[in-house]
Parts: sequence; C-alpha cells; structure tokens
Amino acid sequence: MHFPAALPLQSGASIRDYSLSFETYGALNADKSNAVLICHALNASHHVAGVYPGQDKSEGWWDNMIGPGKPLDTNRFFVIGVNNLGSCFGSTGPMSLNPDAPVGSARVYGADFPVVTVEDWVNAQARLLDAMGIDVLAAAMGGSLGGMQALSWALQYPQRLRHAVVVASAPNLTAENIAFNEVARRAITTDPDFHGGHFYAHGVIPKRGLRIARMIGHITYLSDDVMNEKFGRQLREAVSREAAGSYLYSTQDVEFQIESYLRYQGDKFAEYFDANTYLLITRALDYFDPARSYGGDLSQALARATCKFLLVSFTTDWRFAPQRSREIVKALLDNRRDVSYAEIDAPHGHDAFLLDDPRYMGVVGAYFDGVAKEMAA
Amino acid sequence: MHFPAALPLQSGASIRDYSLSFETYGALNADKSNAVLICHALNASHHVAGVYPGQDKSEGWWDNMIGPGKPLDTNRFFVIGVNNLGSCFGSTGPMSLNPDAPVGSARVYGADFPVVTVEDWVNAQARLLDAMGIDVLAAAMGGSLGGMQALSWALQYPQRLRHAVVVASAPNLTAENIAFNEVARRAITTDPDFHGGHFYAHGVIPKRGLRIARMIGHITYLSDDVMNEKFGRQLREAVSREAAGSYLYSTQDVEFQIESYLRYQGDKFAEYFDANTYLLITRALDYFDPARSYGGDLSQALARATCKFLLVSFTTDWRFAPQRSREIVKALLDNRRDVSYAEIDAPHGHDAFLLDDPRYMGVVGAYFDGVAKEMAA
Repeated sequence: MHFPAALPLQSGASIRDYSLSFETYGALNADKSNAVLICHALNASHHVAGVYPGQDKSEGWWDNMIGPGKPLDTNRFFVIGVNNLGSCFGSTGPMSLNPDAPVGSARVYGADFPVVTVEDWVNAQARLLDAMGIDVLAAAMGGSLGGMQALSWALQYPQRLRHAVVVASAPNLTAENIAFNEVARRAITTDPDFHGGHFYAHGVIPKRGLRIARMIGHITYLSDDVMNEKFGRQLREAVSREAAGSYLYSTQDVEFQIESYLRYQGDKFAEYFDANTYLLITRALDYFDPARSYGGDLSQALARATCKFLLVSFTTDWRFAPQRSREIVKALLDNRRDVSYAEIDAPHGHDAFLLDDPRYMGVVGAYFDGVAKEMAA
Repeated sequence: MHFPAALPLQSGASIRDYSLSFETYGALNADKSNAVLICHALNASHHVAGVYPGQDKSEGWWDNMIGPGKPLDTNRFFVIGVNNLGSCFGSTGPMSLNPDAPVGSARVYGADFPVVTVEDWVNAQARLLDAMGIDVLAAAMGGSLGGMQALSWALQYPQRLRHAVVVASAPNLTAENIAFNEVARRAITTDPDFHGGHFYAHGVIPKRGLRIARMIGHITYLSDDVMNEKFGRQLREAVSREAAGSYLYSTQDVEFQIESYLRYQGDKFAEYFDANTYLLITRALDYFDPARSYGGDLSQALARATCKFLLVSFTTDWRFAPQRSREIVKALLDNRRDVSYAEIDAPHGHDAFLLDDPRYMGVVGAYFDGVAKEMAA
C-alpha cells in the first residue's frame, strides 16, 4: 500500500511517498473486531503464514503459530502481517528510490534512509490499519523486536487494541545486547564494500560484514545447551576423521560442525539481507526504551497501557531472558493491568519463540480462545 | 632462550630453531624446589609481574597476584613467565623468519606457522625448565587458557610438578565457546588485508578483522551485570545529550558508551596484536580436550595427574562458567586426588581472574602458604 502523505519520524526527520508490504489471512468480520496485527523481528517480513502457490518451501515465518486451526486461528481472526519501513522485503527501505535525491545523484536511499524506531513503525502500522478501516485491533502480537512493537502499540494507541501478546521480548536492551549489535554493525560498516552505506552505486555488497553479523546473531539466538546438544565438539567429517582420531590442525579450514553451521548461516543471510536494513533494525532495537522518558521508571511508562497482556518468555533465552519479561509483568501489575505470563521451560534459547513447543503453543492458543470469547460476548 | 633442536608438535609437524621469551622473579633456591611456572592466556606474555625500569605503566599482566608479599610471593618463590610459541611478544611466532622458506620467497612464517596446541606449549615450557636445570615445579599456574596449560602439565609431566593452580578455566570448549572463536577468526581471515595470512609481505595488517575479533572477545570477558553497571544504556555524551533528552539517531556514529568502549578496545588491540597469532591461540583453545582420547571420560583422562590442585572459578564467568571448573574437580575427586576448590562470588565475569578480589587473592595466597610450608617440611 502506498502512502503519499509524509510520516513524521521520532528523529525529527520524515519520510514521504512510502509503501508498506502486507499480507492478510482469514476474513475481517462485519464489525471489524477480529483483526490481529503481527509485528516482525530483525530478518522477517509480512509473510507470516501459509505458502505461496507453487512454492512448497515458502512457509511464512510464523506458520506454526498462525493459520486455520492453529494457536492464532485464521478461521476466527483476520491476521495482518506487515513489513516494516526500512526493511528489505517490499516496504520502502534503503534499497528504494529516494524521492529527495538530487537529480543526477544516486537515486537509492542507501545510508540516507532515515533512522526509524519502534514507535515510528507502530505509527506506520496504524496508518495501514486506518486505510483498511480498522479502528481497533483484537491484538497486536510479536516476538523479540516484534514484541517491543506490540508493547509500544499498547502505549502509543491504548484505545486501538484490546490485547498485546509480547513474546521473548524486553523493555529495552541491556549493555550486552547493544554490544552484540554494535559489533555486528561494525563488521558491516568496516567492510570495504560498504562504501559508507552507498554500496549499491558501486555494484557491490558488503557480504563479509553481513556474514559476520549473522554469525554473531546466531550465537545469541541459541542456548549454550542446545548448541552443545546439536553440535557439541563434533568434527565436520565425523565419520572418517573421528575414526582416525585426529584433528585437521588448521586455523582457517572448518574443523568443528558448529563452524560449518555458522558459516552456512552467514553465507545464506548475506545473499538476501540488505546491509543498511541490518543497521537500521539493530538501531531500532538499541533505541527502544519506553521508560527513558520517565527517568527509567517502567511502571510509570506503562501506566498509559489499558489493554490486556500475554507475556511469554523462555528459560534458556539469554538474549532476552525471562527476567526482562518479568520486568514488564511487574510494571503492568504495578498499574493493576490484566496480565497473563508464561515462562516456558524450553532448551532452544531465543529461537524458541519461532519453534514448536506444545506448552508454548497451548498457552498462546488458550489466550486467543479467550480473546475470541470476549469478541463473541 | 634459543632452542636449536626441533620440537615435534601434536599435529605431526615440527618447529626448529625457535626461541622462547621468558622472565623470572625472585630467586631459585638451592634445591631448585621453589619454581612456579605462570602460563598465559590469549593476549598476554612472559611479562607477568613488575615494571620495566623507567616505564611506569609497564606492570605485568598478573602484577596484582605476583610479587614480593603478594599472594604468589616472589620472596619465597622463583616465578617464571614464558611467552608461548606462536605468540607475538618475543617468542618464535608467525612474524618470525621461517628457516624453511624457499630462498627468495617471503621469509616470515605468516600463515605457514604450524598449528600449536596446549600440549605443544607445555612441551616447549618443559624444555625451558630443562635448560634452567629445574626438574620439578612447585606449581604450574594459569587463568583461562593458562589454566588449561597448568592442567595439561599435570597430565603430561605428572612427576614434574607438585601443584597445579587452575583459575577460571575449563576441561574443553563448549560449542558456544568455539562459535565465538570462529566468528572472530572469520572476521580476521575475511578481511581483505589478511591475504591468506601472508599480509606482512603486502605491508598491511588486517586491522578491521582484529578490531571485530577483540570486540567479540571483550563481550565474552565481561558479565552482563558488570556491563550494565559500568555502561548500562548511558549515552556517550551523557551530560549534554541526556539533558537534551535526545538520541543522535545515527546507525554509524557512537551513541552509547558501551559502543565507545568496545571500539576503543578493538582499536587498541589491532595496534599491537598479530592476526596469525590470534588464529593460532584461539585454535589451541578449540583443540584442548584431554578427555577426547578417553571417549570423553574426563575422570579417566585425569587419572594420570598426581599433583595437588587448586581450582578457582567466578560466579558470573559465562565464558568458562563455574560448572566447567566443577567438572574438573569432580573428575579429580573420582581419582581421589587432593583438590581445593573456590567459587568466588564476583561480578566481573571472566575478567575477574585478572582483577583484585580480596577473597580470590586470599584463597590463592593461603594455598601458596601451604605450598611453601610443604617445601620447608
């Protein structure tokens, strides 16, 4: 959907002539009360569920969660997936034409794409809902950075949503979270192919940096436990070499399976993800901090929220540990808000929010059953 | 000290015409029973204690631990610091001339320096002791990778040491540990200035990669707690900008103090550390795994050890968590060895092994009092 009116951004800048890619699943009911907005995290998109015709492997990134008869049941809810501004999956972003570029210059935004925040994304999403004639969401829902958007919905548009479902998220990043983002960004920006963010004009892509960034990210998505279980200290060619009982003794070749896995993830990511988008989205993570305007008092910051909440965290998530979700729960309870909270004992670390865990799926399914009953009441 | 005889390495290769840099502190007693060998970790050297004349800021890396009247008291012990093979602080390493290089080729080892292991380092250290006429060590001691060397001493030369002091260490690396090493190595080896490890001949240094590697390393040395306490979410120019209440809204400039700290650490490291040494030393970490030859059974692997042990770990160390030290303690106890173990409640993460903590210093001091009493008995 194209938006001709300029969107003012938190930074003071604005963006004009932008588009948002979105998908919908299920049917909007007559009183438009069954809409659920899904907010995505770093490298996902508006394609949250289902497969595209003729493309067997094109499942949406939350297809286990969303669909007919699934925990978020598209037979009952009208689900909207939207790609955020600054991303690289169809919505206006660094690879889009910059309408304000001087004639004759590089016409693509590149590093000139304005810095966007979680709050900006929520404002853009609200405009999309306006255009769709949806005043009030049954729920806003997301995991990780997507959970921050769901939380921010409750603060920016308290009258426009009934529920916020915030999974594996946090009220802000810790110094360590920011540190990991910063190393990843530096890997990208110091890649000689980055060219200050205007690499498109040079016909190159800072793939080295993107690979490193993704490898770092992947380490933080997995738990130590699951890494040990999946990879441990296994050698890459275990069968032949374990038998021989020897290492390769190389500093540059792949020796352990975990190395092979990380290199593969890095290579794959560098093929499809935009480097400037990586910078923008990690910066949006860094900046999110609703308590900041309240001297760090999260309870005060969340007083604006009026909707009901479901929070879910995972025991082995060390990127956004359960403690961080509990901070949100506590701040909401300080304000006597209606909060459900589930801490799922799962081995998979931060990635657990994307995986099938029957207890997790059960909790979300039961919560949306309740939402559906409220709608019917 | 120069060693003309070739040293056979675990990989099957060997190294000839090598030198080891070392320093000693205190005096060797008449029966040569008071020698303590200090083994270093990734980026340290033989300069473990004291300052060089006229260089006020040249304290040894373990100067708080080692010196007259300190926990390892150089009035009683003869302390030896040695720089390992492959390092870049004086001992033969990748920046040294390669005696086997074809005439007319690049004469420096670079990436041709053979892969060295913890076991190789211990063998080289044993030769140094041979040359010094020291048959038996009062103790071998080290932190982190240095602790692995102290442990390996007890396995490779059980008759040549009375005590092993193993601080903030582990019996091997986890998949996550290897993963962090691998990302750091890939940052270096994919830096266009790396030139396959033969960058010296090109007159360049892969500083971009070294910076990223060091930034990643630093994150893993600190605890989440101490990072939050030291840096939290503070902005770089807190005074002026917090007052203005605004972010810079930049993806490439430094916004948070933690970013400034990491960039500084990365820049500093890239000025003095050799890229090939970084690869070699992280690989030695990856490879260390005494239980490997025993089907993963650490108790069996440690049965060879006969000396007494002190192990120390730190509660917030997530690189080498207390659990890893406890694995060693358990395996030694399975063999009915004499083991002391202290788990220090310290906030500083892995870095704690280099810092002043009165309980930590007290434990080590008391242990060496006992060693001294044994010597006198």
